[in-house]
Amino acid sequence: MEIKVDLFSDTGTRPSQDMRRFMAEAEVGDEQLGEDPSVNRLCRMAAEMMGKDEAIYLPSGLMANQISYAVHTNPGDEIIMDRTAHPIHYEAGAVAVISGASIKALAGEGGIFSAADLKAAIRGYDYHSPQTKVVSIEQTTNLGGGRIWPLERIAEIAKIAAANDLKMHMDGARMLNAAIAAGVAPLDYGQYFDSIWLDLSKGLGAPVGSVLAGSAEFIEKARFWKQRLGGAMRQAGIIAAGGIFALEHNVSRLKEDHEHAKMLAKTIDDQPGLEIDPDTVETNIVLFSVKDNKTELFADELLKQGIRVSRLNGKLRAVTHLDVGRDDIRFAVKNIEKIANQIFPE
Amino acid sequence: MEIKVDLFSDTGTRPSQDMRRFMAEAEVGDEQLGEDPSVNRLCRMAAEMMGKDEAIYLPSGLMANQISYAVHTNPGDEIIMDRTAHPIHYEAGAVAVISGASIKALAGEGGIFSAADLKAAIRGYDYHSPQTKVVSIEQTTNLGGGRIWPLERIAEIAKIAAANDLKMHMDGARMLNAAIAAGVAPLDYGQYFDSIWLDLSKGLGAPVGSVLAGSAEFIEKARFWKQRLGGAMRQAGIIAAGGIFALEHNVSRLKEDHEHAKMLAKTIDDQPGLEIDPDTVETNIVLFSVKDNKTELFADELLKQGIRVSRLNGKLRAVTHLDVGRDDIRFAVKNIEKIANQIFPE
Amino acid sequence: MEIKVDLFSDTGTRPSQDMRRFMAEAEVGDEQLGEDPSVNRLCRMAAEMMGKDEAIYLPSGLMANQISYAVHTNPGDEIIMDRTAHPIHYEAGAVAVISGASIKALAGEGGIFSAADLKAAIRGYDYHSPQTKVVSIEQTTNLGGGRIWPLERIAEIAKIAAANDLKMHMDGARMLNAAIAAGVAPLDYGQYFDSIWLDLSKGLGAPVGSVLAGSAEFIEKARFWKQRLGGAMRQAGIIAAGGIFALEHNVSRLKEDHEHAKMLAKTIDDQPGLEIDPDTVETNIVLFSVKDNKTELFADELLKQGIRVSRLNGKLRAVTHLDVGRDDIRFAVKNIEKIANQIFPE
Amino acid sequence: MEIKVDLFSDTGTRPSQDMRRFMAEAEVGDEQLGEDPSVNRLCRMAAEMMGKDEAIYLPSGLMANQISYAVHTNPGDEIIMDRTAHPIHYEAGAVAVISGASIKALAGEGGIFSAADLKAAIRGYDYHSPQTKVVSIEQTTNLGGGRIWPLERIAEIAKIAAANDLKMHMDGARMLNAAIAAGVAPLDYGQYFDSIWLDLSKGLGAPVGSVLAGSAEFIEKARFWKQRLGGAMRQAGIIAAGGIFALEHNVSRLKEDHEHAKMLAKTIDDQPGLEIDPDTVETNIVLFSVKDNKTELFADELLKQGIRVSRLNGKLRAVTHLDVGRDDIRFAVKNIEKIANQIFPE
Ligand SMILES: [Ca+2]
Ligand SMILES: [Ca+2]
Ligand SMILES: [Ca+2]
Ligand SMILES: [Ca+2]
Ligand SMILES: [Ca+2]
Ligand SMILES: [Ca+2]
Repeated sequence: MEIKVDLFSDTGTRPSQDMRRFMAEAEVGDEQLGEDPSVNRLCRMAAEMMGKDEAIYLPSGLMANQISYAVHTNPGDEIIMDRTAHPIHYEAGAVAVISGASIKALAGEGGIFSAADLKAAIRGYDYHSPQTKVVSIEQTTNLGGGRIWPLERIAEIAKIAAANDLKMHMDGARMLNAAIAAGVAPLDYGQYFDSIWLDLSKGLGAPVGSVLAGSAEFIEKARFWKQRLGGAMRQAGIIAAGGIFALEHNVSRLKEDHEHAKMLAKTIDDQPGLEIDPDTVETNIVLFSVKDNKTELFADELLKQGIRVSRLNGKLRAVTHLDVGRDDIRFAVKNIEKIANQIFPE
Repeated sequence: MEIKVDLFSDTGTRPSQDMRRFMAEAEVGDEQLGEDPSVNRLCRMAAEMMGKDEAIYLPSGLMANQISYAVHTNPGDEIIMDRTAHPIHYEAGAVAVISGASIKALAGEGGIFSAADLKAAIRGYDYHSPQTKVVSIEQTTNLGGGRIWPLERIAEIAKIAAANDLKMHMDGARMLNAAIAAGVAPLDYGQYFDSIWLDLSKGLGAPVGSVLAGSAEFIEKARFWKQRLGGAMRQAGIIAAGGIFALEHNVSRLKEDHEHAKMLAKTIDDQPGLEIDPDTVETNIVLFSVKDNKTELFADELLKQGIRVSRLNGKLRAVTHLDVGRDDIRFAVKNIEKIANQIFPE
Repeated sequence: MEIKVDLFSDTGTRPSQDMRRFMAEAEVGDEQLGEDPSVNRLCRMAAEMMGKDEAIYLPSGLMANQISYAVHTNPGDEIIMDRTAHPIHYEAGAVAVISGASIKALAGEGGIFSAADLKAAIRGYDYHSPQTKVVSIEQTTNLGGGRIWPLERIAEIAKIAAANDLKMHMDGARMLNAAIAAGVAPLDYGQYFDSIWLDLSKGLGAPVGSVLAGSAEFIEKARFWKQRLGGAMRQAGIIAAGGIFALEHNVSRLKEDHEHAKMLAKTIDDQPGLEIDPDTVETNIVLFSVKDNKTELFADELLKQGIRVSRLNGKLRAVTHLDVGRDDIRFAVKNIEKIANQIFPE
Repeated sequence: MEIKVDLFSDTGTRPSQDMRRFMAEAEVGDEQLGEDPSVNRLCRMAAEMMGKDEAIYLPSGLMANQISYAVHTNPGDEIIMDRTAHPIHYEAGAVAVISGASIKALAGEGGIFSAADLKAAIRGYDYHSPQTKVVSIEQTTNLGGGRIWPLERIAEIAKIAAANDLKMHMDGARMLNAAIAAGVAPLDYGQYFDSIWLDLSKGLGAPVGSVLAGSAEFIEKARFWKQRLGGAMRQAGIIAAGGIFALEHNVSRLKEDHEHAKMLAKTIDDQPGLEIDPDTVETNIVLFSVKDNKTELFADELLKQGIRVSRLNGKLRAVTHLDVGRDDIRFAVKNIEKIANQIFPE
């Protein structure tokens, strides 16, 4: 089956010809020794963008999360995050292995919990229990459906964190989607966090990597963990250049992905047998349900037309991104309509 | 304030004169080398009682949990237990530190989850996520209010565990309370578990220790972890003798503690301003609520009369045990009635 | 084979009738909640003895080492100790498991390294390597043959540690043997260490336990680790009382054990086929060699006479202690002479 | 100071124009999902080369070591390696953090220990001590001076490992240097190891990455650890293509680096004040000493002429590689002669 429109994930975006050319010409050096000029430039760009002293280049976003938790905690501490958060489901249990920390999972809505939820979850100082040390927020919420943590909510959370001496961490896998959709500068998010990172390989279209930013002191400790986990590379400027190119060319266009997601959501909302609350589609992720146990069938029929979506906890997920254009979306819309009406004739 | 009736916890039970005498005469040897006759005898008793090949003596129940998890898991694995379970709240984050394992907390009732809950929580084989390896059950449920896991429920859980290649662990901190109250032999519980332990220092009245039982292979691995965690002692026969005495003299009398708990529950149920479902009081733990934000006041008034209870997540908890006799319970009943009627005049 | 004189280890000492009586009468309470009066009294005694703010009672010396390392390090740090030190050989790899720390083993003499050795082993600040954080000293050196770390050597070591921001830890499994033999007060050792513990179950004759002392801040952190590792007990006053009795009655008598060791050493030195440097026998441990691959034979012949020694890295080790009296030593001396002359007729 | 001849390390090699072009045209996909064709192709090449079922692409060699140890051990186990081995000095203490394993360091010569050394270091089965599980060999020995583990030595080691149920691991950071210099096929090394990896970013000149090979079962477990440590990337084919290019074009030319190293060694051997045993220069690493505390001065004078070497434990190290041509070596030779004669006039 040839895939014509791949809505499986924005992790599949491929570097464009221009990006490839830019990468091929990158100045490089020994990244592990801090001597790679392209890596250094990317880190300065990212640090400025998020309003932090410094940044560090890493092979993955997962490593950015793990390093941050390792720096912010001691073994035995606890990290608060939503029950849908990435480290709980997709990081192979790394938090316990690497940091020796526990996770307290909150039952937010769409991946977003309230300040009151946070407050209730913070443990008292007592040697019987783990000690709460970090609040971790995923922007946007992947399993939560691409929802945006509003700046005001973040501010409330940060206030409680400060009062309880907790570190604030943002898993910014799709933070730039939130920034573009909400019209909030990354800098404005950054002010509330002790550690914050952005992913280069999702909607931005770079092939590899994330950039983790924080205070000079935080980044200094992060360097030990980067080395320890095997994230120190050599002439990584080649791939870092992809990140530079992405930050320079592919950020503002994320709004097209969001428009595309809304087009899909509207279509889905209009069909018989499909269920979605279109107001919850805030960025590039479209989570919807199919009635009458037809989820499997619906996904299979889409795939027969060359449209790939993913299955997630009994729902379907379509993710828009750089490699899906307006025509692709029109093609998807047409087929969703057709298939829905075939399966659920009115 | 002199405490006349201490319902704070059954961990406070003290060795009787007879138990002390028995302990003082214990034969001892180097426990770490397996040469302590009293420890060896206690372990044989406990292994037989729970129907297992062998058992190992440990300074605490917490260590019994941690050793079991360490043997049953590899770093990165996940353990399923109820959200009220002891390791989540009272073991200082040890699971992550010692085993590098994560905990998946289920939302059971009174600390008891269903087979369906378990089934839904088991993760598929996928290198993105932690791998589910252990189901852990706390008998009775402490934070759940001393509820008993029924044997049939355990059998259902064990069936799903077997089908998914999960190890079964029982935190038997108050397993003998369950056994006595439910009329189930420890042996009958034991058949379903790969590791199971009983605590000697709670209702049984011994000063220190727990005994962890399992297959010969399990216990052999447990010995490494006992050494590694600092649980290997020397002439521990002195305290193990307390355990022998307790198993020989203090098991069947647990039914008195349960009667006492029911007396308290009935009294509480009859008072204005106090709330309890007396049917949930199955063993020696009595969890109840006080209306109108008078929880603090009610506990303080009890304490003024020499009756100590504990506070737990906004409720009050009274625990009956060896050192609380029938007269003590009558005294508590009388005072609960008096204070409730003072605070909540009808 | 009945064992008449057990020189296997001083860990085998048994509580005397007087100690047992004292223990049986101990006041007790919930140790985990800090409410056991006997445990509290023992801790105050030990803290004063070693000149520290506070102390904490633990089920084993191994746990005292592990808690100290866990408090003093972060994962990835390095601890310097002699290659003969207990944690390298007898703690089941616990340092890596519990603290995530590495050990740098120095090649001292008799378990004692020099200040220059230490200085050369401290690593520079560099994210490629583990960071040196702790110097750990075993007083006396068990595998090193019961040698005493002289106070001046400790002072030199401490000076270098201070200059390099390293914590000082004493594994005091036989520290009181050193104190008695060298005529140095535990207080004088204590001044150089951030953490220091003494064992109650070896030469002192108590059945179980060790006491770890340090600053109030250190002990506060240690409490979390005690809980986490399963060292928090209940009515532990029963066994703590053995420790109180031991500190009150069994310290000064350690000099007899040292005399006995010297008697054995002298005898061994005088025999054909046996090799020892009697000047290295400073406390209660006697390490000696048997020529011509007769080690096994010599130990077997001793055992046939009811005298048990242990084998250690190709040598034999005899340890004197509380349960070995003057007559026992005379018996051993006589038999060593007889057997040596049988095996190595001149 | 412009650096004309950089002998600091072979980690500094830069991708050539041809390699860059090849990389820019690479087919890519989502590496984390196993869908990147270039990564898959590189892994097949490497697996075949080393005679293993499968291979896995990683961002660094450090991660290849750590994943292998994590798969081969359980927490508390011990790994045997030479005291000069990379994980002891340059992996930020990762073995303890990630695997909870200890390292037993052997005192080999030039980083190479004997079968007898290994045999003596293996611990007996005993719950007091860590259990020996892995023998780890660094080919070539970096801190040992680029020495080659001879195939016969490896065979002897492997025999003892097999007899003791130990896993064999090769840190192949410079394995291809050994293969070329010794005329041994990687396949011949591979047969003796349960895990073996080669580095693409050193002498081979690719910008990033290593490839770890083993049995299908080993690689399946390695995938979990790759994810857990943050080594799973996205369109990594771009950099993997550099590895493919390197394996196709840059392997046989390593012999030039070795010739260059010998040229440097011969020169150094001929100078007054410089000390080297030229027979120990087997590959591309030249370790030498400077007399009379002139090490610093000698390195500084070289640098003034544009020649950079590194300092290593009181010696100087020159490493030849892809970016150092015959003329560069001639230039270095001339300057070494000149400077040595200035500093040490005869
Ligand atoms: Ca991408
Ligand atoms: Ca008790
Ligand atoms: Ca394991
Ligand atoms: Ca003893
Ligand atoms: Ca720490
Ligand atoms: Ca390179």
